[in-house]
Amino acid sequence: MELFAVPDLPEIRDGDDLAAMIDERADLREDDVVVVASTVVSKAEGRTYNLDDFEPSPRANEVADRLAEIAGDEKDPRFAQAVLEESAELIMEAPFLLTATRFGHIGVNAGIDRSNVPGGDLLLLPERPSESAARIREGIAADRVVVSDTCGRPFRHGQRGVAIGWAGLPASRDWRGERDRDGREMGVTVQNVIDELASAANLVAGEGDGGTPVVVVRDWAFGDHEGSDNHFREVEGDFVRQALRDWSYEDH
Amino acid sequence: MELFAVPDLPEIRDGDDLAAMIDERADLREDDVVVVASTVVSKAEGRTYNLDDFEPSPRANEVADRLAEIAGDEKDPRFAQAVLEESAELIMEAPFLLTATRFGHIGVNAGIDRSNVPGGDLLLLPERPSESAARIREGIAADRVVVSDTCGRPFRHGQRGVAIGWAGLPASRDWRGERDRDGREMGVTVQNVIDELASAANLVAGEGDGGTPVVVVRDWAFGDHEGSDNHFREVEGDFVRQALRDWSYEDH
Ligand SMILES: Nc1nc2c(ncn2[C@@H]2O[C@H](COP(=O)(O)OP(=O)(O)O)[C@@H](O)[C@H]2O)c(=O)[nH]1
Ligand SMILES: Nc1nc2c(ncn2[C@@H]2O[C@H](COP(=O)(O)OP(=O)(O)O)[C@@H](O)[C@H]2O)c(=O)[nH]1
Ligand SMILES: [Mn+2]
Ligand SMILES: [Mn+2]
Ligand SMILES: [Mn+2]
Ligand SMILES: [Mn+2]
Repeated sequence: MELFAVPDLPEIRDGDDLAAMIDERADLREDDVVVVASTVVSKAEGRTYNLDDFEPSPRANEVADRLAEIAGDEKDPRFAQAVLEESAELIMEAPFLLTATRFGHIGVNAGIDRSNVPGGDLLLLPERPSESAARIREGIAADRVVVSDTCGRPFRHGQRGVAIGWAGLPASRDWRGERDRDGREMGVTVQNVIDELASAANLVAGEGDGGTPVVVVRDWAFGDHEGSDNHFREVEGDFVRQALRDWSYEDH
Repeated sequence: MELFAVPDLPEIRDGDDLAAMIDERADLREDDVVVVASTVVSKAEGRTYNLDDFEPSPRANEVADRLAEIAGDEKDPRFAQAVLEESAELIMEAPFLLTATRFGHIGVNAGIDRSNVPGGDLLLLPERPSESAARIREGIAADRVVVSDTCGRPFRHGQRGVAIGWAGLPASRDWRGERDRDGREMGVTVQNVIDELASAANLVAGEGDGGTPVVVVRDWAFGDHEGSDNHFREVEGDFVRQALRDWSYEDH
């Protein structure tokens, strides 16, 4: 398996044909997986906004005030408004905003970025990243596309690459029913390969001004396994999400 | 960046010199990262046990009974005992055992495996995986070692590779203070590269009878960044862990 960045991509702007720009710059093969950072998908899809585009509701003011009180410095209610508009559920209100986006991804601030955004204050995530992935896939020679983001998680420090959209491959390899080395049937083992692909790509793309938002994964086979497209957990069955709903920062 | 599995590793047994076995089979370079599945580290370190090695305490019986009631089938109190002995904290008791190991990793059943374990019922995680990584590093030509496991997580379906031990490189790249593409200082951005390396390696190793527990990552540079060795979150500051402590399955 080999990973390399697509070279010489310019600053991406609203309306750019990202697929064509990628396809021109890399000699893609059909069985490559192309991992595209959500940042550039968002830029191409016109998801760049200014804070002034968001008119704070009373709820956004309340949320921002509470965060400001905890942090001891000002929080912009326009930003809180943007987060609320991008979210299907506000899971934690303090000490930071943990939300579920409409497409099911759970992250801080609905994944809104304030780095690497020339010409705007805010970059929202793509509205439907799997549809973005499918559109990019149509325009390139490779058959598999993952749209990635970088985000934090419980229990472990730091951020890592994750998949928020995918097309042309299942989200996971399902090993259930297959045999282990001892010939025993394996327990519940579903390997989320799109998150692993996004993490691998992030090692090459990085977070700074490197300018390499698109990474090609070559010579990686999904293999002869069942596939599953379950990716984001539903509330039912996600005990962590349920526990967070019941939890309050001020009680601690 | 390139990844390949170390070929022809046999079944690993208690007392095996894993470092020598790896070094013989791969023409390692100094700047390679060698990612070793915890399974084989555990086997070499004699962490294979039988259920009969664990004498259930009253607490273990209580925990197993509660799980059995929820699941509607029997749960072995000896297994519950093994999990309790391996754990510094039992964070969730139902509907599954979520624990923190002594070395700080949070996972279901203290990471005890029941697949790929010939000659025993249970395979415990290495006692101190970063010390294991350091020992392996001493015996191979490569300078960087990650010990990995596969585990699940909140919010997202499926399992993915994570790092539980490391030597010769920091856990994370710290981008704070560096500049983004717009020349702005970046927000809090700490990229956990050892988890990303473990995920990348897991794409090659897989979960089944593939027999490839050691993966070499070649031509990947940490780069000119500050490093951080913060990897497992402490309870303070981990709001998810706090919320789970307060939460009870039966109330829902
Ligand atoms: N060429 C190019 N690179 C970009 C652009 N925007 C971001 N990048 C690069 O893409 C990579 C990932 O950017 P990041 O902001 O971390 O994206 P995210 O992980 O999807 O939030 C970094 O190497 C950035 O320098 C762009 O418009 N053009
Ligand atoms: N050669 C060899 N491969 C093994 C051995 N034990 C496990 N594996 C392989 O190592 C890989 C990872 O095994 P797994 O049980 O998922 O390890 P974990 O992710 O660390 O829990 C799979 O490809 C297994 O087939 C062993 O003793 N020898
Ligand atoms: Mn982002
Ligand atoms: Mn990023
Ligand atoms: Mn394991
Ligand atoms: Mn595994």
